[in-house]
Amino acid sequence: MLDALPKMKSGLSFLVAALRCEIDELDQLGRTSELVGAIGRLVHALQRERGLSNVVLASGGRRFVAEREAQIACSEHLEREVRVRLDRLEGPGDGTRSPAPGVHLRNGARLFSRIAWVLPGLDALPGLRDRIGALALPVADATAAYGRLVAGWLAVVFEAADGATDPEISRLLAAMFNFMQGKEFAGQERACGGVAFASGRNERARQQDWLDLIESQERCFQVFAEFAGPALEAQWLANLAPAQMAELERMRRIACAAPPGAPLDPEMSAAWFDCCTRRIDAMQTVEERLADDLRRLCDAKTRGARTELAAHEALLIRLADSPSPVPNAFFDTPQAVVAAPPPGNPALYGRQLERSILDLVRDQSDRLQAMSDELDTVRATLNERKLVERAKGLLMAHRQLSEQDAHKMLRQTAMNQNRRLVDVAESVLAMAEYLPAAVTPKRA
Amino acid sequence: MLDALPKMKSGLSFLVAALRCEIDELDQLGRTSELVGAIGRLVHALQRERGLSNVVLASGGRRFVAEREAQIACSEHLEREVRVRLDRLEGPGDGTRSPAPGVHLRNGARLFSRIAWVLPGLDALPGLRDRIGALALPVADATAAYGRLVAGWLAVVFEAADGATDPEISRLLAAMFNFMQGKEFAGQERACGGVAFASGRNERARQQDWLDLIESQERCFQVFAEFAGPALEAQWLANLAPAQMAELERMRRIACAAPPGAPLDPEMSAAWFDCCTRRIDAMQTVEERLADDLRRLCDAKTRGARTELAAHEALLIRLADSPSPVPNAFFDTPQAVVAAPPPGNPALYGRQLERSILDLVRDQSDRLQAMSDELDTVRATLNERKLVERAKGLLMAHRQLSEQDAHKMLRQTAMNQNRRLVDVAESVLAMAEYLPAAVTPKRA
Repeated sequence: MLDALPKMKSGLSFLVAALRCEIDELDQLGRTSELVGAIGRLVHALQRERGLSNVVLASGGRRFVAEREAQIACSEHLEREVRVRLDRLEGPGDGTRSPAPGVHLRNGARLFSRIAWVLPGLDALPGLRDRIGALALPVADATAAYGRLVAGWLAVVFEAADGATDPEISRLLAAMFNFMQGKEFAGQERACGGVAFASGRNERARQQDWLDLIESQERCFQVFAEFAGPALEAQWLANLAPAQMAELERMRRIACAAPPGAPLDPEMSAAWFDCCTRRIDAMQTVEERLADDLRRLCDAKTRGARTELAAHEALLIRLADSPSPVPNAFFDTPQAVVAAPPPGNPALYGRQLERSILDLVRDQSDRLQAMSDELDTVRATLNERKLVERAKGLLMAHRQLSEQDAHKMLRQTAMNQNRRLVDVAESVLAMAEYLPAAVTPKRA
Repeated sequence: MLDALPKMKSGLSFLVAALRCEIDELDQLGRTSELVGAIGRLVHALQRERGLSNVVLASGGRRFVAEREAQIACSEHLEREVRVRLDRLEGPGDGTRSPAPGVHLRNGARLFSRIAWVLPGLDALPGLRDRIGALALPVADATAAYGRLVAGWLAVVFEAADGATDPEISRLLAAMFNFMQGKEFAGQERACGGVAFASGRNERARQQDWLDLIESQERCFQVFAEFAGPALEAQWLANLAPAQMAELERMRRIACAAPPGAPLDPEMSAAWFDCCTRRIDAMQTVEERLADDLRRLCDAKTRGARTELAAHEALLIRLADSPSPVPNAFFDTPQAVVAAPPPGNPALYGRQLERSILDLVRDQSDRLQAMSDELDTVRATLNERKLVERAKGLLMAHRQLSEQDAHKMLRQTAMNQNRRLVDVAESVLAMAEYLPAAVTPKRA
């Protein structure tokens, strides 16, 4: 028979290893959360840049040229902030073979893949800006290009939320993703309404898009409120100044409730733009607060886990110094548990120590299970987005549709059948095999 | 404006980082799969040891003493094999601060925590064996102790399956877990029937337990067949020799269909034990094949990913040597894509190269998404077990039940209401707040 002590230590060392896994995950989540905060600021700058670029293009280069230049400088500064955090995330990277810290994430591969997708967009931004500065791009194309870039960054934030292994952090990241997505819908609504008022009339198709954007926004902010907790939700509600909301809703009604094709007052476009912009800027303060909460939560969690690790490691040392007990508490019936530590009897003392290790392991295991259950709940909500994305992807592949058209098709079906978008997406996925064949990517 | 090339490289380097994450995950899955194979062999040995120990105890030390000694030597050998693989999994471990390789797992913390739970059981095994050798333990307690140890190892295999990030490997691990679980139910059925025949009569409660064990086994083997693929399923079916199955079913009928309390022929207990043992030993060959398939699959996957990584790294080098292109393919509309590589024109060549990187990223992203979707499917099945475990845990905490009694309560409700066990578990979880309060562990 082998010596009992090293064996018991090995059980405890796996307890310590489990905690170290948690700490590594929390460290990585801290870095990811910093990145998400920086992405939020960059996306906000890109949204402003998009708005100003549209005015520059629409006015033939007569308005907002200087404002746009200033905004570009601001975007470039925030872009550097994001790149710094990306470097931290990726670790040594490039040619070296040492593993990136990102491997500590539950879905490091997917997160990195999203980043790899969006980075070329950031690289192409100077070219896009040049074409806008030369007035060599239609407004719609400029809007679409910025929209594509923002969507790419939102996909990164989504993976960060989906990959979080701590349920509380996962909740805040899910709140963040939904808030950013809602804010982007608000930005798209600003652009959509801007074009409508400026053109002097609203068309039926545009009205429909507009109403879609309002509904999508509201859904996002609902999910945000669900996950952000009461303090942040209160700040969000306080930000919605009643007078401003009333003004927004009045202009929405004028444009969307009018019969299609009815004339709109082009003079209202400036008021519309201002009202939307104030609202979106107010959103940014909520988002900053959310990013701040996220950072502090990560810090607190990491500190807590480190304290626990130190305690466990102290126990490991104490165990090494204690007399070698006969390990058999594992098979004890509950009645056999020693009630109080009897310091006079080394054998019983060892039994007690062993018991307390088993209790620690049981506690840790229960806590990890509870965390896993709560994570499932948060992910179920994120999953709705995944279902819609998958259904869109399916339609794009099988029916040769653009992403936008696939989304419209889903929305139209949902409206016609008076069902939720996610339910329609599920139906589409369920009947996937009835669709014509398409090539799906696969590694050989 | 910054130089375009280093930026484009940075996008590609995240593509490489994503692949490296995948490779690290596959390496870790390889190690975990080796561990699972070793656990399978150890569990089989412990099951045999349990059977022999029961006979030793029941015969008052007159039968199977030498066979048990030989089996213990075999178990000890397989225990060392498991410990070697555990050491590889845990890495440097103990006092050092360097991260364990296990952090590359999706749920390293939970896997390690399960291992920390079961290792003290292995440490306590010599003490258990001494008591059995001294005939100082009732048969039922010995059976329960071995059952507890086997359940601990099965929980490790479960976490390994649940933590797998590759869907094909996850399928095989899920097949493995279900097969091992089914085999353990078969072992419990052998013990249950053994006691019934030896005692000369069957009681109503034992009949019910027995039928439960048959049903649980069949459910496990169904799920195994679902995930293992046709070749392994065929081997499994070929193993069920018809004559042997007929004999097994005949003895099951004699014992379970007779009126409760009716006498049984004690002479049948040897035939029962032999028939069950032949069946369980045949299972072991299927399990060995499954472990082998798992190992080869991990190897093939790792090789495939390494080949792809090498190709991407070559592209990274080629890109560093190529003329610096203006990156803007990200905002290209599909029509603008250059159809064929024009080697004469460096700018267009750069564009083409950039395009091919974007395509690579898109392919990778699609593949990762498809993998994630397939993983969800496998996990949904594993989730059923989680639901039952959670419902049991809830009942244990709120109603002060033992695990066995909690399980019985769920089964009884399922039978009374003619519903599936997992559906009853879901109902129990849904009405959790109606149960009396219980203390749940939480980190401060």
